[in-house]
Amino acid sequence: MEALEATTERIGTLDEGAMEAARERQGRLTKPPGSLGRLEALSVQVAGIQGRARPEVSKKVGFVAAGDHGVVAQGVSAYPQGVTAQMVQNFAVGGAAINVLARCVGARVVVVDMGVAGETARAARVVHKKVAPGTADITRGHAMSRRQARETVRSGIEVFEEELGRGIELAATGDMGIGNTTPSAAIIATFTGRRAAEVAGRGTGVDDAGLARKVAVVERALSVNRPDPKDALDVLGKVGGFEIGGLAGVILAAAANRVPVVIDGVISGAAALVAAGLEPRAKEFMIAGHLSTEPGHRAALEHLGLEPLLDLGMRLGEGTGAALAMGIVEAAVRTLNEMATFEEAGVSGAEGE
Amino acid sequence: MEALEATTERIGTLDEGAMEAARERQGRLTKPPGSLGRLEALSVQVAGIQGRARPEVSKKVGFVAAGDHGVVAQGVSAYPQGVTAQMVQNFAVGGAAINVLARCVGARVVVVDMGVAGETARAARVVHKKVAPGTADITRGHAMSRRQARETVRSGIEVFEEELGRGIELAATGDMGIGNTTPSAAIIATFTGRRAAEVAGRGTGVDDAGLARKVAVVERALSVNRPDPKDALDVLGKVGGFEIGGLAGVILAAAANRVPVVIDGVISGAAALVAAGLEPRAKEFMIAGHLSTEPGHRAALEHLGLEPLLDLGMRLGEGTGAALAMGIVEAAVRTLNEMATFEEAGVSGAEGE
Repeated sequence: MEALEATTERIGTLDEGAMEAARERQGRLTKPPGSLGRLEALSVQVAGIQGRARPEVSKKVGFVAAGDHGVVAQGVSAYPQGVTAQMVQNFAVGGAAINVLARCVGARVVVVDMGVAGETARAARVVHKKVAPGTADITRGHAMSRRQARETVRSGIEVFEEELGRGIELAATGDMGIGNTTPSAAIIATFTGRRAAEVAGRGTGVDDAGLARKVAVVERALSVNRPDPKDALDVLGKVGGFEIGGLAGVILAAAANRVPVVIDGVISGAAALVAAGLEPRAKEFMIAGHLSTEPGHRAALEHLGLEPLLDLGMRLGEGTGAALAMGIVEAAVRTLNEMATFEEAGVSGAEGE
Repeated sequence: MEALEATTERIGTLDEGAMEAARERQGRLTKPPGSLGRLEALSVQVAGIQGRARPEVSKKVGFVAAGDHGVVAQGVSAYPQGVTAQMVQNFAVGGAAINVLARCVGARVVVVDMGVAGETARAARVVHKKVAPGTADITRGHAMSRRQARETVRSGIEVFEEELGRGIELAATGDMGIGNTTPSAAIIATFTGRRAAEVAGRGTGVDDAGLARKVAVVERALSVNRPDPKDALDVLGKVGGFEIGGLAGVILAAAANRVPVVIDGVISGAAALVAAGLEPRAKEFMIAGHLSTEPGHRAALEHLGLEPLLDLGMRLGEGTGAALAMGIVEAAVRTLNEMATFEEAGVSGAEGE
């Protein structure tokens, strides 16, 4: 069987027994019931994902996939394309925001070249899964072939599974790719049915003229390619990106291996839509790390039925919002595991109970 | 001079030079300008508070003040009063939510008995500053004398300054006190001018009848005592609590010592109003950790001009929301300090710049 289908078929459902045990324990911990708010629900979700009443998330990995985009020829980004490869190098030496935030929460960073236009081969700490040196311009035709779309997802699965031996209890997604808010907007418009103007944003910081150009580019990409929202590989191939497909693979592999996966911003949100299009059960294994200021992100999360944990006005990508949120997930799991119960602490419960 | 006035007089303003240097560095880091959102503004605020362009927040301390409240006789809490002392014991042995969350972010916890009704003397890890074994019932008269109000604030200052020798680069406030959302609502109503029904909430989880009783109790406390919003010690003395005054002292001492202080939920918010009433410049040194589900909390933060970092549906107190937010503050400071600049990383800037 193909690796992609073999993976999606392994994706199960949340373990109700583990969730019920976690919920019951939450009710016995020394706090008013429900007073830890979303931390309680998160701990229950992670229990259900991992299939154990006392889950563990010490081993954290952020997967950062990089790729380039032919559509930059249309002037949709404030930065030159060469920045993608330069930033991959920055990731490799630990100087980028994702490196710092991953250190803050004790996560490893796995950087994957899924399709960077420039050379990243010399960076020893980069996993090489380059499908091609950048996608084709989506205003003129398909971003990649259907075969390549399948290959990107499979590569993402491979990257996750190659890393699994070193231990992954909590995963996060992140991206790097100059111009990639444009294909992300096209993907989000396709799956959610929103108009280009509702989901395209300023990305790294284009001005009003740049934003208008970007909306027109997304509209053109959709009218030229007519991606089919019922066929996720069709959407990925026609208006996607290599790093987006790779992250869809990471998400599917996480779900298949019962690892909670924290979704970052708008590019990761587009990847999550592709993953959910390939296997809707994958949604249960996702945690929305934060809300990006890119307007398409909210549309993607609403479509996935996910509520973001953080809302800090961030729009950097790289997995930065997801990394910060990993700290919140760990806090949720550790309160479940480490707090004393009323009985253990000799604390009285609510009166009349 | 009195310790309180000596402290408030030492509170300065933010260091504009350090803030400008931090802002300038943020503009050179390898990311689009502004893309780290509130993390960037936070790092600049912390630079201004500490008076250095590259601030440090490794040494983190959560101050948890505990006290009891005579108003529990009016049936305003779902829990018996004895829980205050029991939870102080739980803090001392590390079993409470605040202990777990402080461990998650690498913070020490300093627990202070400001006025617990029961005995906490045997817990070696509790600082003893007991003003009295619980306040008087605020529906029948003043919570405490004006002399005691001053003493609570001074004690909070002392606790902070006694801990300063062990290093404090980032402080947080937290509380424990069965019934203390009621005096907090009275304080918030006084300073903000809101009605009792707008600021009283369900606290640990009272039912509809309990909430109606609580609103009536707050109204009665205000009409019996007539606290003067222009005189913070009058407000604290008439409708406050010992732990609330202690936390006001911690906040003032943090500001006087140029230490950023993360404010927790509704009780800490009431304490922050008292601190700001004593010295308005203290507001610049505050960071709102999270938004509690208690309705009075939003009113308090709006009055202080603070925007909460997190909104996770929490309402536990103890400093739990502030502790989680300390991790965000550290992330903000570490991205400022540890990220590579465009020049260092050899990454191209935005085109046309």
